[in-house]
Amino acid sequence: MIDVVFFDLGDSQGSTETKDQYDMVIIGGGPAGLTAAIYASRGGLDTLVIEKSSEGGQIAATEKVENYPGFISIDGLELAEKFSDHARHFGATISNRGVRNLTFCCDKKTIVMDDSSEIEAKTIVIATGATHRKLGVPGEKEYEGKGVSYCAICDGAFFRDKHVAVIGGGNSAIDEGLYLTQTASKVTVVHRRDKLRADKILQERAFNNPKMEFVWDSVVEEVQGDAFVNNLVLKNVKDGTQSDFPVDGVFIYIGLVPNSALLKNLLQTTHDGFIKVNPVTFETSLPGVFAVGDVIDKELRQIINAAADGASAASSAIKLYF
Amino acid sequence: MIDVVFFDLGDSQGSTETKDQYDMVIIGGGPAGLTAAIYASRGGLDTLVIEKSSEGGQIAATEKVENYPGFISIDGLELAEKFSDHARHFGATISNRGVRNLTFCCDKKTIVMDDSSEIEAKTIVIATGATHRKLGVPGEKEYEGKGVSYCAICDGAFFRDKHVAVIGGGNSAIDEGLYLTQTASKVTVVHRRDKLRADKILQERAFNNPKMEFVWDSVVEEVQGDAFVNNLVLKNVKDGTQSDFPVDGVFIYIGLVPNSALLKNLLQTTHDGFIKVNPVTFETSLPGVFAVGDVIDKELRQIINAAADGASAASSAIKLYF
Repeated sequence: MIDVVFFDLGDSQGSTETKDQYDMVIIGGGPAGLTAAIYASRGGLDTLVIEKSSEGGQIAATEKVENYPGFISIDGLELAEKFSDHARHFGATISNRGVRNLTFCCDKKTIVMDDSSEIEAKTIVIATGATHRKLGVPGEKEYEGKGVSYCAICDGAFFRDKHVAVIGGGNSAIDEGLYLTQTASKVTVVHRRDKLRADKILQERAFNNPKMEFVWDSVVEEVQGDAFVNNLVLKNVKDGTQSDFPVDGVFIYIGLVPNSALLKNLLQTTHDGFIKVNPVTFETSLPGVFAVGDVIDKELRQIINAAADGASAASSAIKLYF
Repeated sequence: MIDVVFFDLGDSQGSTETKDQYDMVIIGGGPAGLTAAIYASRGGLDTLVIEKSSEGGQIAATEKVENYPGFISIDGLELAEKFSDHARHFGATISNRGVRNLTFCCDKKTIVMDDSSEIEAKTIVIATGATHRKLGVPGEKEYEGKGVSYCAICDGAFFRDKHVAVIGGGNSAIDEGLYLTQTASKVTVVHRRDKLRADKILQERAFNNPKMEFVWDSVVEEVQGDAFVNNLVLKNVKDGTQSDFPVDGVFIYIGLVPNSALLKNLLQTTHDGFIKVNPVTFETSLPGVFAVGDVIDKELRQIINAAADGASAASSAIKLYF
């Protein structure tokens, strides 16, 4: 997840590398933001990327990426560096300062940095990403990337012929659970209620899939394992009993939260805060403000798709505003 | 361009590597098709890619690719190989035979190969690409990649502070011409008529752009140069006079032709043959048949976007049909 901490007032790195005006300011330095930077700077725009935490966003925290075409298997951090090197190569500046506020007023787009300095942008690209909601139980963080995953399409292939659990009962949980049945030997959906929230058609497909099983009225109390996950401690919420549930992996789908808090009142979003964009230009409801990657309302959240969003937004911006 | 020659009845390579049934058959082995193959095979589908000519499609014929994120600069052929290696790594088969015909009948999807053998597919992905219409004048082919280009967003950066010509008067010519003004010192539109076909709004922007100039009623007779393009021989179609027009590069926008001839009566297309797809799932008007990359009706035709299409189509297919 791309942790642009908008309200962080902590120690600014006092970078002097930034100017007070850019053709394009990109907020968030994951694959979507960095690809926008590659296309913008290569296309002739004076471009700034602001990324408070790690360049590369979510991928920088990913142990192994196998599905970005061109790299059969690459360390997430290494891929992140390749993206930022690529953006810098064409002249983009990457700043590791934080953003305090954005103001879109009176035809001016101003980014207020955490040291109170202001940067003006002709165009803005929001690429702040999203964060998977966590269970918040012991073992979850410890085993992330070692059996705990939040993305079936990213990590399903690591569980070929294994038994995995999917936590959740909404569309994402069931949709991705069905996806996992292609590779896993068994997929058990663990849900805290006695029925699913997912769309009827998904429910039907799930109930008819011989590889899918269900554990109702249950929540995860702990993720356990050795080097790798091998057990979930489940609690039945009706009778309070605890039980062990041996699995080889667990996919957690209890919600994805867009990092868009600061923008919600400035731009049109879905009810849960994902930014709505024109699917061709990636422009938001505000002219000159684009949004790309996991923070937008979209279907597939993969590195390759985030990067494609960035290329589209930057190319559109150049054609529309320069 | 991905030259799947559907009706080629020439010497089959008689591959014995293909079976007569697959979960997914992908027709066309460019970035879109190969990424679909990566996602399909990694997602557990038995996957075949059919590519009669060069694996990698258009990129295999591209000298230098600078805008596929992760590779600052890479030989097109090398990038193409990385894509096919990646697809093979996860188990996809790539066949270099040709396709003679497709029949979608009675719930069966059959690919008739050029040696008359038949392959049945549960799902199909059309990734046959598109071909830029050529001027067909001396020098055009010789200088392709050496000053002659058909893609401003791909190659514009190679002409920073140079004078380039854009040939054509439609939306693509003017849109990409405007894009080029960001980097080029001057962009001259050469058009065979005395007015543009492009939309009014694009025309206005073009006429108001101080870097844009126009040569009316003129066609290119020859592209000339030394190591690199340095001159166009133009002919005025009204008075028949010829003249030299020194330029550093020429972008040709006289049409893009989708490689979809065989599919036009099977699938819904635009009037000029680009396949219409659901923008989220990339499914065509025919259930179980998807289309991706340059052959579809879309805005931005870049490697990164083609690849993203492929990832989306394969992921959708797995969720919808397996």
